Amino acid sequence: MKQSINEVINVVKQKQPLIHNITNQVVMNFTANGLYALGALPIMAHERREVAEITAQSDALVLNIGTLTEELLDAMIIAGHEANKKSIPIVFDPVGVAATKFRTQAARQILSELKVSLIRGNAAEISHLAGLKSSMRGVDATAQSNGEMTINQVVKKLNIPIVMTGKTDFIADQSSIFKLSNGSSLLTKVTGAGCLLSSIVAAFLSVNQSEIISATAAVSYFTIAAEKAAKTATSPGQFQIALLDALSELKEADINERLQIEKVSVS
Amino acid sequence: MKQSINEVINVVKQKQPLIHNITNQVVMNFTANGLYALGALPIMAHERREVAEITAQSDALVLNIGTLTEELLDAMIIAGHEANKKSIPIVFDPVGVAATKFRTQAARQILSELKVSLIRGNAAEISHLAGLKSSMRGVDATAQSNGEMTINQVVKKLNIPIVMTGKTDFIADQSSIFKLSNGSSLLTKVTGAGCLLSSIVAAFLSVNQSEIISATAAVSYFTIAAEKAAKTATSPGQFQIALLDALSELKEADINERLQIEKVSVS
Amino acid sequence: MKQSINEVINVVKQKQPLIHNITNQVVMNFTANGLYALGALPIMAHERREVAEITAQSDALVLNIGTLTEELLDAMIIAGHEANKKSIPIVFDPVGVAATKFRTQAARQILSELKVSLIRGNAAEISHLAGLKSSMRGVDATAQSNGEMTINQVVKKLNIPIVMTGKTDFIADQSSIFKLSNGSSLLTKVTGAGCLLSSIVAAFLSVNQSEIISATAAVSYFTIAAEKAAKTATSPGQFQIALLDALSELKEADINERLQIEKVSVS
Repeated sequence: MKQSINEVINVVKQKQPLIHNITNQVVMNFTANGLYALGALPIMAHERREVAEITAQSDALVLNIGTLTEELLDAMIIAGHEANKKSIPIVFDPVGVAATKFRTQAARQILSELKVSLIRGNAAEISHLAGLKSSMRGVDATAQSNGEMTINQVVKKLNIPIVMTGKTDFIADQSSIFKLSNGSSLLTKVTGAGCLLSSIVAAFLSVNQSEIISATAAVSYFTIAAEKAAKTATSPGQFQIALLDALSELKEADINERLQIEKVSVS
Repeated sequence: MKQSINEVINVVKQKQPLIHNITNQVVMNFTANGLYALGALPIMAHERREVAEITAQSDALVLNIGTLTEELLDAMIIAGHEANKKSIPIVFDPVGVAATKFRTQAARQILSELKVSLIRGNAAEISHLAGLKSSMRGVDATAQSNGEMTINQVVKKLNIPIVMTGKTDFIADQSSIFKLSNGSSLLTKVTGAGCLLSSIVAAFLSVNQSEIISATAAVSYFTIAAEKAAKTATSPGQFQIALLDALSELKEADINERLQIEKVSVS
Repeated sequence: MKQSINEVINVVKQKQPLIHNITNQVVMNFTANGLYALGALPIMAHERREVAEITAQSDALVLNIGTLTEELLDAMIIAGHEANKKSIPIVFDPVGVAATKFRTQAARQILSELKVSLIRGNAAEISHLAGLKSSMRGVDATAQSNGEMTINQVVKKLNIPIVMTGKTDFIADQSSIFKLSNGSSLLTKVTGAGCLLSSIVAAFLSVNQSEIISATAAVSYFTIAAEKAAKTATSPGQFQIALLDALSELKEADINERLQIEKVSVS
């Protein structure tokens, strides 16, 4: 797996994919800077009259419902149809989906009208999407549930590749589940860390046919960058900056030395 | 007072209150990161169809008119009614209220339709709300007026607890006024410093019944964090990051050593 | 030229002009912090009911179409008419103008209905506005075309002073063209660096009658600040912060030592 991961990373850095983000207002700046740091190109656009044209020029589309409005939902559906028509991968980030009926219905509409390539969320969000019980406060999961059991259940129910992040991260499709144990607890102190990961996953999906390999490479890259950042930065302000720096500078050797990956049995 | 302040700080850190912010687009990211650094949880949401549900789950609501639109104002009124119904404290931040008729009318509507727990603003904003003369350029007060006289006048007129920030900060209700002399001039160089303070005040209000004690604790915590940040960071970029770090790391000893508080006579 | 540049810089720092930005959601925070660092005052406001009042109090207006919506376009036209009425300078930043029909038409409307004082964009954006062929991906120019030839062509076609940024920067009006070779490649790794420059150009235009001198001073100040920042910060996260610091601390001596300016012959 290490070799596949490093291959995908190299292709991302070389191709500099353009990522169309229809995302929330809190994280736009950090997401754009994170994508630039990685070596990808961000574009944020959400006017209904132009989103299809933007998506058509992009290598991947990210739909993030963090500060969703009716107008943004319309724009997501329009952009999503264009992405599907052109076979451009879509990553869906169901931020705080369990918090309101509006978000729950919006997520249902997105998943029923569009062919989503991958969903990235925390255990509470992913569980809610799959109709399982979950517990969260606002947009943050309150507790790490039993990750292996949860991922096994949700991936079968949703039938879409999934990245479920938390203290440990799971990447799953119908046939395989990987568990990654890299990262830093400081990621929970930076707003938009998860949202940025969704956009990085999108960048990786755009250069490789296999969702599970691309997503595993993306999560490895991101969480190992966070580990490196946490070596020099121990508080949340500094860490935010160090994470951008690490995303820009991570080397193949960092992946090889630090990667903690396990295959989980599909039950 | 030191003991009460430190007690409230400890409760905030332990309870991790969820703060619903309907705020301006300039400061959303910084506000969210500041609340995380403090140990609270931010949520930003402003779609009219979902704000009541978000507020109902939150421990406090912040209404900030910095980049107000008609849609945001509607969302604020809806969320505010829900907060009042559930006795959830509301902090109102009248950013640039004197600048336009739209903001002036919006502030009047908010204060007449909702029971606001506390207003946080600079001298020009607070004076304008109270119908006194004020002077400002854009959203920044141009000069420190006579603080003690101003706070005495406005708190009587408005009949709502007030945090009035500037070179010195005042926290007042009908019966007491406190003057705090901590802080750093670098706070005026970071956009959204005042807005973040409003959200931190909301976090503190959510864990204690007394507005004046909660707000004094919040302002003390924030301005002493700024002092500590200014010890290592002398320019605005670094200071922005150091402030987040200080918000995350401030200790009881910092408060005890640095707090400069005075009781002001109510005239 | 060095003396004129330093004179304009001193006037900006002394007058602290108030800059009204109707800009994109990605860069609002960074733009506001950059203007504060420079010593100017930012205001962001885009509600149609209040923009004219905000513009009327401001020293310059920036129109940036980075995350344009129909509502924002309306607000820009209203604010722009007020600016024209009061002879307040307008800087237009046509972010990603070639990417969609909506942006192309919006730019045409802005340039036909309003008297714009200066346009700031990359070669692809400026070329597109002038009806020349251009090449870009998303909002980023893909390659530096022949700068001198391009600036000569576009300034004649558009008949508006222009700042065209890239590896080298050009400032031009009908009678003169200046070429500046300061800056850092790290500027391409920070989202909103160009947008911030547009707002800084606006601050400089507000204190001096000559667009070409003001804009040359602004670009010099910004790109030399970037050079200084790149001396201490070699990765994009750190650089973002160091740029704000350099904008706050740049000295006349820095301009005098580092300025690399050339007059280009107008063909």
